[in-house]
Amino acid sequence: MCGIVGIVDAGGVSYPLYYALYALQHRGQESAGITTFDGKALHKHKAQGLVAEVFDVDSLSGLLGNAGIGHVRYPTTGEKIPENIQPFNFTFQKKKISIAHNGNLTNTQDLRREFEERGQIFCTSTDTEVIGNIIVDELRHSSSMQDAVLACMKRLEGSYSVVVLIDDKIYAFRDPLGIRPLCLGKTPEGYIVCSESVAVDALNGEFIRDVKPGEMITISKEGIKCVQIAQASCCGFCIFEYIYFARADSVIDGQLVYDVRRRIGKSLHLEAPVDADIISPVPDSGTAHATGYSESSGIPFREGLIKNRYIGRTFIMPNQKARENAVRIKLNPVKKHLRDKSVVLVDDSIVRGTTSRRIIDLVEDNGAKEVHIRVGSPPIKAPCYLGVDMPTREELIAHNHSCDEVCKKIGATSLHHISIEALIRATGHAPEDLCTGCLTGVYPLKIGNEKACTRHIDFISGTYQSDLKTFGKEETIK
Amino acid sequence: MCGIVGIVDAGGVSYPLYYALYALQHRGQESAGITTFDGKALHKHKAQGLVAEVFDVDSLSGLLGNAGIGHVRYPTTGEKIPENIQPFNFTFQKKKISIAHNGNLTNTQDLRREFEERGQIFCTSTDTEVIGNIIVDELRHSSSMQDAVLACMKRLEGSYSVVVLIDDKIYAFRDPLGIRPLCLGKTPEGYIVCSESVAVDALNGEFIRDVKPGEMITISKEGIKCVQIAQASCCGFCIFEYIYFARADSVIDGQLVYDVRRRIGKSLHLEAPVDADIISPVPDSGTAHATGYSESSGIPFREGLIKNRYIGRTFIMPNQKARENAVRIKLNPVKKHLRDKSVVLVDDSIVRGTTSRRIIDLVEDNGAKEVHIRVGSPPIKAPCYLGVDMPTREELIAHNHSCDEVCKKIGATSLHHISIEALIRATGHAPEDLCTGCLTGVYPLKIGNEKACTRHIDFISGTYQSDLKTFGKEETIK
Amino acid sequence: MCGIVGIVDAGGVSYPLYYALYALQHRGQESAGITTFDGKALHKHKAQGLVAEVFDVDSLSGLLGNAGIGHVRYPTTGEKIPENIQPFNFTFQKKKISIAHNGNLTNTQDLRREFEERGQIFCTSTDTEVIGNIIVDELRHSSSMQDAVLACMKRLEGSYSVVVLIDDKIYAFRDPLGIRPLCLGKTPEGYIVCSESVAVDALNGEFIRDVKPGEMITISKEGIKCVQIAQASCCGFCIFEYIYFARADSVIDGQLVYDVRRRIGKSLHLEAPVDADIISPVPDSGTAHATGYSESSGIPFREGLIKNRYIGRTFIMPNQKARENAVRIKLNPVKKHLRDKSVVLVDDSIVRGTTSRRIIDLVEDNGAKEVHIRVGSPPIKAPCYLGVDMPTREELIAHNHSCDEVCKKIGATSLHHISIEALIRATGHAPEDLCTGCLTGVYPLKIGNEKACTRHIDFISGTYQSDLKTFGKEETIK
Amino acid sequence: MCGIVGIVDAGGVSYPLYYALYALQHRGQESAGITTFDGKALHKHKAQGLVAEVFDVDSLSGLLGNAGIGHVRYPTTGEKIPENIQPFNFTFQKKKISIAHNGNLTNTQDLRREFEERGQIFCTSTDTEVIGNIIVDELRHSSSMQDAVLACMKRLEGSYSVVVLIDDKIYAFRDPLGIRPLCLGKTPEGYIVCSESVAVDALNGEFIRDVKPGEMITISKEGIKCVQIAQASCCGFCIFEYIYFARADSVIDGQLVYDVRRRIGKSLHLEAPVDADIISPVPDSGTAHATGYSESSGIPFREGLIKNRYIGRTFIMPNQKARENAVRIKLNPVKKHLRDKSVVLVDDSIVRGTTSRRIIDLVEDNGAKEVHIRVGSPPIKAPCYLGVDMPTREELIAHNHSCDEVCKKIGATSLHHISIEALIRATGHAPEDLCTGCLTGVYPLKIGNEKACTRHIDFISGTYQSDLKTFGKEETIK
Repeated sequence: MCGIVGIVDAGGVSYPLYYALYALQHRGQESAGITTFDGKALHKHKAQGLVAEVFDVDSLSGLLGNAGIGHVRYPTTGEKIPENIQPFNFTFQKKKISIAHNGNLTNTQDLRREFEERGQIFCTSTDTEVIGNIIVDELRHSSSMQDAVLACMKRLEGSYSVVVLIDDKIYAFRDPLGIRPLCLGKTPEGYIVCSESVAVDALNGEFIRDVKPGEMITISKEGIKCVQIAQASCCGFCIFEYIYFARADSVIDGQLVYDVRRRIGKSLHLEAPVDADIISPVPDSGTAHATGYSESSGIPFREGLIKNRYIGRTFIMPNQKARENAVRIKLNPVKKHLRDKSVVLVDDSIVRGTTSRRIIDLVEDNGAKEVHIRVGSPPIKAPCYLGVDMPTREELIAHNHSCDEVCKKIGATSLHHISIEALIRATGHAPEDLCTGCLTGVYPLKIGNEKACTRHIDFISGTYQSDLKTFGKEETIK
Repeated sequence: MCGIVGIVDAGGVSYPLYYALYALQHRGQESAGITTFDGKALHKHKAQGLVAEVFDVDSLSGLLGNAGIGHVRYPTTGEKIPENIQPFNFTFQKKKISIAHNGNLTNTQDLRREFEERGQIFCTSTDTEVIGNIIVDELRHSSSMQDAVLACMKRLEGSYSVVVLIDDKIYAFRDPLGIRPLCLGKTPEGYIVCSESVAVDALNGEFIRDVKPGEMITISKEGIKCVQIAQASCCGFCIFEYIYFARADSVIDGQLVYDVRRRIGKSLHLEAPVDADIISPVPDSGTAHATGYSESSGIPFREGLIKNRYIGRTFIMPNQKARENAVRIKLNPVKKHLRDKSVVLVDDSIVRGTTSRRIIDLVEDNGAKEVHIRVGSPPIKAPCYLGVDMPTREELIAHNHSCDEVCKKIGATSLHHISIEALIRATGHAPEDLCTGCLTGVYPLKIGNEKACTRHIDFISGTYQSDLKTFGKEETIK
Repeated sequence: MCGIVGIVDAGGVSYPLYYALYALQHRGQESAGITTFDGKALHKHKAQGLVAEVFDVDSLSGLLGNAGIGHVRYPTTGEKIPENIQPFNFTFQKKKISIAHNGNLTNTQDLRREFEERGQIFCTSTDTEVIGNIIVDELRHSSSMQDAVLACMKRLEGSYSVVVLIDDKIYAFRDPLGIRPLCLGKTPEGYIVCSESVAVDALNGEFIRDVKPGEMITISKEGIKCVQIAQASCCGFCIFEYIYFARADSVIDGQLVYDVRRRIGKSLHLEAPVDADIISPVPDSGTAHATGYSESSGIPFREGLIKNRYIGRTFIMPNQKARENAVRIKLNPVKKHLRDKSVVLVDDSIVRGTTSRRIIDLVEDNGAKEVHIRVGSPPIKAPCYLGVDMPTREELIAHNHSCDEVCKKIGATSLHHISIEALIRATGHAPEDLCTGCLTGVYPLKIGNEKACTRHIDFISGTYQSDLKTFGKEETIK
Repeated sequence: MCGIVGIVDAGGVSYPLYYALYALQHRGQESAGITTFDGKALHKHKAQGLVAEVFDVDSLSGLLGNAGIGHVRYPTTGEKIPENIQPFNFTFQKKKISIAHNGNLTNTQDLRREFEERGQIFCTSTDTEVIGNIIVDELRHSSSMQDAVLACMKRLEGSYSVVVLIDDKIYAFRDPLGIRPLCLGKTPEGYIVCSESVAVDALNGEFIRDVKPGEMITISKEGIKCVQIAQASCCGFCIFEYIYFARADSVIDGQLVYDVRRRIGKSLHLEAPVDADIISPVPDSGTAHATGYSESSGIPFREGLIKNRYIGRTFIMPNQKARENAVRIKLNPVKKHLRDKSVVLVDDSIVRGTTSRRIIDLVEDNGAKEVHIRVGSPPIKAPCYLGVDMPTREELIAHNHSCDEVCKKIGATSLHHISIEALIRATGHAPEDLCTGCLTGVYPLKIGNEKACTRHIDFISGTYQSDLKTFGKEETIK
């Protein structure tokens, strides 16, 4: 999972890109980078670390120009080496090109082999360089980026939301199944395309709409142009963005993530009510879910565990004992809320089960007489090949354990996962428009030997629907 | 405001002190330091920055020994120079001494002058060096630390919770009015004294009780000894610790801070109900207050503003426009919760009013039709001389504006501050045991020309109440 | 100008590469990098800065394996961006490849265009990536690195000493004119190829011989193999390596650089004797030259200017006045050696003339009555296209000024440059085997519109002279 | 050994102090610091590291004012803790005071005890804080700094060159035996006092004269005032400053250090001639000595070992083998100068003998047939208590080994130390004006049980010789 952003704005883009990446930081903390174009040359700055660590006044002042893209990285494919930090910058016949990608391709190895057979060398181990090669391969024959993006959509398999900077224009496109999010906004003197709407908010911009699956957006100083390049019979939006990954204050496909999570909490109560004393979230991710459970049940919302805001990435744990203690420094049990209480802990998901067990131990050590776990996702039974960093099937506690077995292993009084039907209902999407691969083992496209419910995809030919807007006119794009 | 800790533990103290300071980080982010004693020499490490930045594996591995103290600093008096970073370490006749202090003395200048007249030089501009001089001055004549602490209590005016490391023993004492918090806990193989109970929790220790105002605690490898050195007619505990400063999960004088804040929220509803659509905290500090208001009123708790967890201290704001925008990157309005809604925003306090105005603007820009502000403290009308870093009287918006005027200035639909009576009731303390100087302008001791309701203080003479506990016996100290 | 090194050694290569780069640090201070291969994967570490800054115990411990290459960079072509730091690493059909290059190509643009027409993208702006593409292009059709290097020698124009790491083998080759140095040595359990013999010395290795112009060396765990790929009618070794660039303790083509410089000093005396009081070098580069002048003349060698060893790259010069003063902090005049003396200052070369003028001012300000400048190179009249970073023709003081004019401009009592004949004699080379482009304006290959005295080059076809040595046998390669 | 500087200059002192410390960097590399006074407050910056690392544009821009002092530290007494970094700053009755000290007191413990008995606490473990206490103790009774310095000279034993900044004036004084150097110079708009004349040169200033032993200098904006406070029957200038410690381009007591060292080299030849092929210094410190030997003998000066200029403090030596190899990376043998040659290696001194043995091994490994060692100091047989960091008596190779034994242990063909008579003659001083404690075991003052040839000291009473100069008048002080 990564975060991407592209901005064209007559007032300069260095600080807008920086603030947008700040807003997307939750999507990736390993590295950050920005590339801008000032009419002549690309300006680039990228490094490992958080946005706040990678950029300073000096580096931002060098990022000149009115068009640029940015990236925060959460490692999926590719080693942790400097070359792999995005955006990926290269040149092709005088053109300065920079690409940033969120998602995960499932046919990377085939595509690389194909290019290598023609003599192509690869400087990174990222999917992004493969996408760069397909684009350039097409641009050699045709000068049309539309053709290049069409070629991408025909050849790339997997999930991809992409922003491309070529000279002073930005091209953005989203895979035909729309697996990863991408949205469009208006900035004071230009436009922004970004992973989540919170980045539009951070610039005090105006949210326009999501980029449609299979759509290509062109942003230039003349305005924006939108073309539907491919159309799938139905989509495959990642249900985990709603459960855990996206920020609660993002709006995705018309749904405020916070509200989806609150509805999940309500359904959890309706499916598995408990006569408890308090409803407590597992911080931070379970707060919205817990509010929903509390409202539906009338049982008071109380924080039973409080997170230390200052634990940073450099927290030192010299040995195993320290690692076990770490949960106590990160999460402080509020004894008075727990002692002799029957507690409902609401969490977003259970992956390996180890953290859940430690938290339950902590809550019980502090006097809770019952600890009921309510989980905002069904059991995770299968890996994700489309961009979420998940353990292998064998490491997933739900892969070979029933719910009762898991309940026993983590030491809970009771355990309930939301049903997949209620979860889908909470998202407001049709079931066939979501990817629920990790929950059902059925993916929206063919991946190795996994089960798939593949979608039919149509590609444009000849006639394009387009709408051109200029910066001057304040019209909204529908 | 600062945080202090002292630990004697047979299993070593470097990591326990480090974790304890982590838990107290909210009390001071300017600098951090630890001093330990290993039977021969003091080991010291301190620097400007957060705990996570100041210490690493190397520096912790050098902090040898079974006794030590630590400090996190929030600047009150003294310039921001390396010499001022605490603990303050010095030697006196072969003795290695280290002191850390939380509070603010009101007679520092008089005491310094007195010592300077005798030829004493001062290496820092901190109160702590003055305290060190008084202790040493007494130790010259008497080898009793009890006499030295008695001398401190007789000569020091203001607030002071202090830990002193002399060779392998720790001495802790709290001013007779108990203005700043200090508490006692049991660690696996020793004892801890610290500003708030969360530091005890962080070590998986057992909370014992608060150190009493005017009490002196001695911790050695033999156990702990408690002596009441001074006794005031009544106390002066800082009411702002409950409102804002302490962590919500700390227990102070028997009160869970979270619950005090929730009760404040309830009283706010009872005193000033609104027929609103949602109750939202101003993050982070208003969450507990808002829960209380929501429960009392039955109006749903919804986060109308979400805080970006990744904004660090290095966030760059190149110009005024950026500074104004900063609030949008730090706090993201959740449009869907705000549009066409009547919103109650619950905040802990209003100081200058500038932040409140920006937040109300932000909420209104995002479509809220009414913004009612409910504040968990009465208007702040006077400065704090006892350790909270507050602006001068003139900068306090409530100093020369009525509540109605403030409401208009910050642009709220309505504004209500909790009454002082309800606030005091929520703390569970008798009014005469609290310092409410910043709210009433009446302080619990004489400070310059300010109004005061001074307390009578008795000092010990001859007979001491003492109780000696050994590590082996698991008895609790009453 | 850069420094390169490749080592295969059964005892591991991380520290040997690190020490070798230390010894070559004078050839480039902008960045440093190492790539190693451990039988499975490439391990890489590179960054901007000095060798001592780029590597630490952690990064070296990650550089596993028994084969590796390293590079120190002195910028010639390519922007100062992270992507340009060498070695340049890439993959091609399962092969892990890393390349480091010293030199400068003169047909880069043509070669890049050729590849781009076939759809190739470029991730860096270095010559090295072009070399990588030629090698891979050939390896596709033939699995023979000999063919690949032959293709390089046929297609590359300019100067290039190259080391290539492919899996566990190192291939090294030097352009047919041998413009940049490259030599071969024996390490305890393997072999080293490097820019200068000092790197062999640093590992306590045994110097074997220079790599011949047009030769290709293969180093594997079986030993080394040498093949003459191309043979030029005569060479074009850079005369500036002798004058200034190489370390004095390096042996190049059988000549100790120190001795060449001492002979230059002697010739300077014979060509332009002065009846002076002292002979002083301009530190550091003129010491060997000055010793030669002193011995030939019998006039005592005395340091008239002493260099401050602690001036680092971070020396701060806030304004123009400071920059003028800087020469005084860097070079301290020894008044007693200068006052009322007639001084001969021996320098290696004069480029723009500004430093010379400042130094002469400094020496005169300190009382010297005569300042005779003797220069170890003829006037520099033309630019270098082959790897030395020199100013444009217009900035060279000798481009449009006679020796008398330069003498007047820099304020010297007298000025003499060594004659080109004496200089060539001092190097011990035949004139036709040297590149003297910057002194004569005639280059050993065609470069744009510059005058050239091109060489005829024969390439191998079919029969190769080769000799295979194993690590076990202690035979020396002839 | 440390370096100190004090400057009063109407044009500001931050950069002048910075450049002066750069010039004195050889006297101490552990830490650096500057304190300035701007009419109101002290401005301070100090940290561990080299001058270039400690200061940057930001920190220098904060060092406001026209008076200030600086210090570079080479550890003698005191632990390596931040508190010990000089200058030592403190306040006393509104006065802002800062002190920097070069030297070592021999009665520190007695003086500290005396102060501690009066209740004084010590924040550092430096001699400097003791000096500060004596000054303040006197200033309490008398407002005259002359009295305070007189008190220092009466009470301090050992070596001390001191600069004191009190408000906008600088006071400098040197112990009555003048053990450490201190000199006076004129800057563009003020005066400078500093450890060596090279710091005056670095500012393009005019050297005036050495500060006399027992003299006190006052520098203010009105000019300078010189008073002889104490007068010893004879002095005790450290002979090691000439042999090794001072920079070659410094002038001390009228002697250019470079010339002293050259005369030492000449005497070495006259005392112990060899029929050798080359004379080579052990870099860096032996160059001037070797020049002298070469000139006297007529044998050519050739560098047989060349130092790598880039070896920094971060050079990594992971194990014993690496440490042994380190000498090869630091010092590269010039094989061609050594093979089959009879070599005279001239070094400044031999302390433990381990480095000498490694260097001789290196030279012999590279083919030298004879290695004659000539040393610019007599055997070091006793420790230094007066500021040079030397090993204990037992670690000194000459303590219990004859010259022949040392020759055998280090593996030299022959070994000769200069005679003490010739050494003293080379310095140009009378024997009774030098401290030769480390060579003879007889010290110029009583230190514990060591032999001493104590001096008689007279102190001023009533009548002072003084001369007042203003900045305006360009008169030189005699």
